[in-house]
Amino acid sequence: MARVHNFSAGPAALPLGVLEETAAELLDYRGSGMSVLEMSHRSSTYQAIYDETEACLRRILSIPDTYRVLFLQGGATLEFAAIPMNLMRTGRAGYVVSGNFAKKAWEEAQRYGEAEALATSEDTHFDRIPNLAPLADRCATGGLDYVHICQNNTIFGTMYHKLPETGEVPLVADVSSCFLSLPLDVERYGLIYAGAQKNAGPAGVTVVIAREDLIEDGPALGICPSYLDFRTQASKGSMLNTPNTFGIYLCGKVFAWVEATGGLAAMEQRNRQKAELLYSILDKSSLFHGTAQPGSRSIANVTFRTGDAELDAAFIAGARERGIEGIGGHRLVGGMRASIYNAVPMESVEALAAYMQEFEAQHTSTARSL
Amino acid sequence: MARVHNFSAGPAALPLGVLEETAAELLDYRGSGMSVLEMSHRSSTYQAIYDETEACLRRILSIPDTYRVLFLQGGATLEFAAIPMNLMRTGRAGYVVSGNFAKKAWEEAQRYGEAEALATSEDTHFDRIPNLAPLADRCATGGLDYVHICQNNTIFGTMYHKLPETGEVPLVADVSSCFLSLPLDVERYGLIYAGAQKNAGPAGVTVVIAREDLIEDGPALGICPSYLDFRTQASKGSMLNTPNTFGIYLCGKVFAWVEATGGLAAMEQRNRQKAELLYSILDKSSLFHGTAQPGSRSIANVTFRTGDAELDAAFIAGARERGIEGIGGHRLVGGMRASIYNAVPMESVEALAAYMQEFEAQHTSTARSL
Repeated sequence: MARVHNFSAGPAALPLGVLEETAAELLDYRGSGMSVLEMSHRSSTYQAIYDETEACLRRILSIPDTYRVLFLQGGATLEFAAIPMNLMRTGRAGYVVSGNFAKKAWEEAQRYGEAEALATSEDTHFDRIPNLAPLADRCATGGLDYVHICQNNTIFGTMYHKLPETGEVPLVADVSSCFLSLPLDVERYGLIYAGAQKNAGPAGVTVVIAREDLIEDGPALGICPSYLDFRTQASKGSMLNTPNTFGIYLCGKVFAWVEATGGLAAMEQRNRQKAELLYSILDKSSLFHGTAQPGSRSIANVTFRTGDAELDAAFIAGARERGIEGIGGHRLVGGMRASIYNAVPMESVEALAAYMQEFEAQHTSTARSL
Repeated sequence: MARVHNFSAGPAALPLGVLEETAAELLDYRGSGMSVLEMSHRSSTYQAIYDETEACLRRILSIPDTYRVLFLQGGATLEFAAIPMNLMRTGRAGYVVSGNFAKKAWEEAQRYGEAEALATSEDTHFDRIPNLAPLADRCATGGLDYVHICQNNTIFGTMYHKLPETGEVPLVADVSSCFLSLPLDVERYGLIYAGAQKNAGPAGVTVVIAREDLIEDGPALGICPSYLDFRTQASKGSMLNTPNTFGIYLCGKVFAWVEATGGLAAMEQRNRQKAELLYSILDKSSLFHGTAQPGSRSIANVTFRTGDAELDAAFIAGARERGIEGIGGHRLVGGMRASIYNAVPMESVEALAAYMQEFEAQHTSTARSL
């Protein structure tokens, strides 16, 4: 069967070349006589893979030397606990509640200290990034160890287009679903983290990029598990214990693909083109409507619906018949969601766009004929 | 290059057929039009992979219905924290300190409550499983939430040949390096856990098998991260968040290979044959000696040395020239270690045995001629 158009929110499409290279090396990694899957993480061959993976990420994101890069396990959900355990030194942090995962991060932090909701958009079902203006004053007042945001809200199709002003307070961002979708100014953050399974690689790897001075004193809380101790993991090169060796190797291949394909500026340009095609259809449509407010729209996840659950289901079923997969919205909200990460080609987005127009033509003429 | 003889302690050799099947499916999983690496963990195709993986493990280990099976991330090291956070209900547990990881588990537990060392073999550099006789009385005295053992000590080449009597106190075992090496009587345990990267699959998956009544009330400690909450993970089928989808899929292939190759009884028989070949050489050798006391010898990791660090280094270098990899001892102890997990064929062990004899003949004749 031909490859489908894969709009899954994660795990998600990977570049075909990455898969081909991985398959070709799977039984014998470059004459080593073994698969990367079978290779000791303490071997010089694997250490070279790890080092180049980190170096390539540092190049494409222009990560300053004052930041440490970790490749951990457990996804963003485990980081929701690790971050307060490492960083809540005075016991209070601010959270922007802009979606489901932002809220989960906020709730998890409440186990470890005072987690203050600085802004929320739950009143309008997370259809926007909340007003961030009050944050500057709150941060200036003091007493916050960090401010946490979820920079792209996968489920609700919203994204920060401007970062909040937090002054001296470190900004901590879950960037899982926009990581590598566009350039990030790493120095604007105290800590960035991302599950790899959107743009960076397979599920099972979490990338953490932390400013050294925030982690060099070790975890704020003594109950932090050793595995989640950012200082220790940094000093051990993410190998306090056996890491997800194969997942990191695959991330390395994806990073190399990003670099060879023009870097993050090129990724952003392509992602904006893909997003604009879909948003332009939504803006003109009398059947579909986007669920995110225009000023908060994501370039990674485009969420939309007809307003009729049966029609949504018919659209999703018809999509599958056309080889368009992963288009169903998150189970919390229903509707549709097209995740258009780096490895989703323009041709897939054009196929979806054509189908949306075809479906609309069919269903508005049906409506007219009734 | 031909495949090497891979004696790595983990990540470790995988069955060639598993690698071949994985490579063949890597671009298109059985007509789905995508790789398993790209597949939503919420898709019916992936759920079927997950369900069969669990079902196959239940068959080969004869896991009773009263036990839950989880596939998590973070390795045994993260479980060292998760176990006390979930199970230390009265705040005290017993630990048998039989090696490096057993000691790490004991130390980590001290963050969460009273972790009592019930027995240790550190006095003889962990060359044996300590005397377990006192445990029965201590367990009968009461006050222990569980007793923790590390059933096979990878670094020191020792293994329990009889489980301790813990009466009503649940036995919790890190079985990472003997998991699937031989049958386990699951009902003897309250909880079993294992990093997959020895016998079960790739690095990045931790298998947890827990008696339901021990986890059904949720974590003992409120500071347990949601990710590590065994009750929640069980209720979500290990998918509180995105699991290591590809790692679990590979575990499923390894489980199927174990089942098709005769199950755990056949694995044990083959592993004992491999171990006996190496131990018989050690017992007859005037150059090499095994480091584990005979009554505590592992069938998974055979540790030995010459007593001369330079000679050990020469042996390891010569091994590499013969395509024998991963034979160096753990960096904490030096010497040599042959990890002879399920996927290491008898032919590899014979190649190592022949080289040991050749090396000994060469070096004892050299010694004589001086």
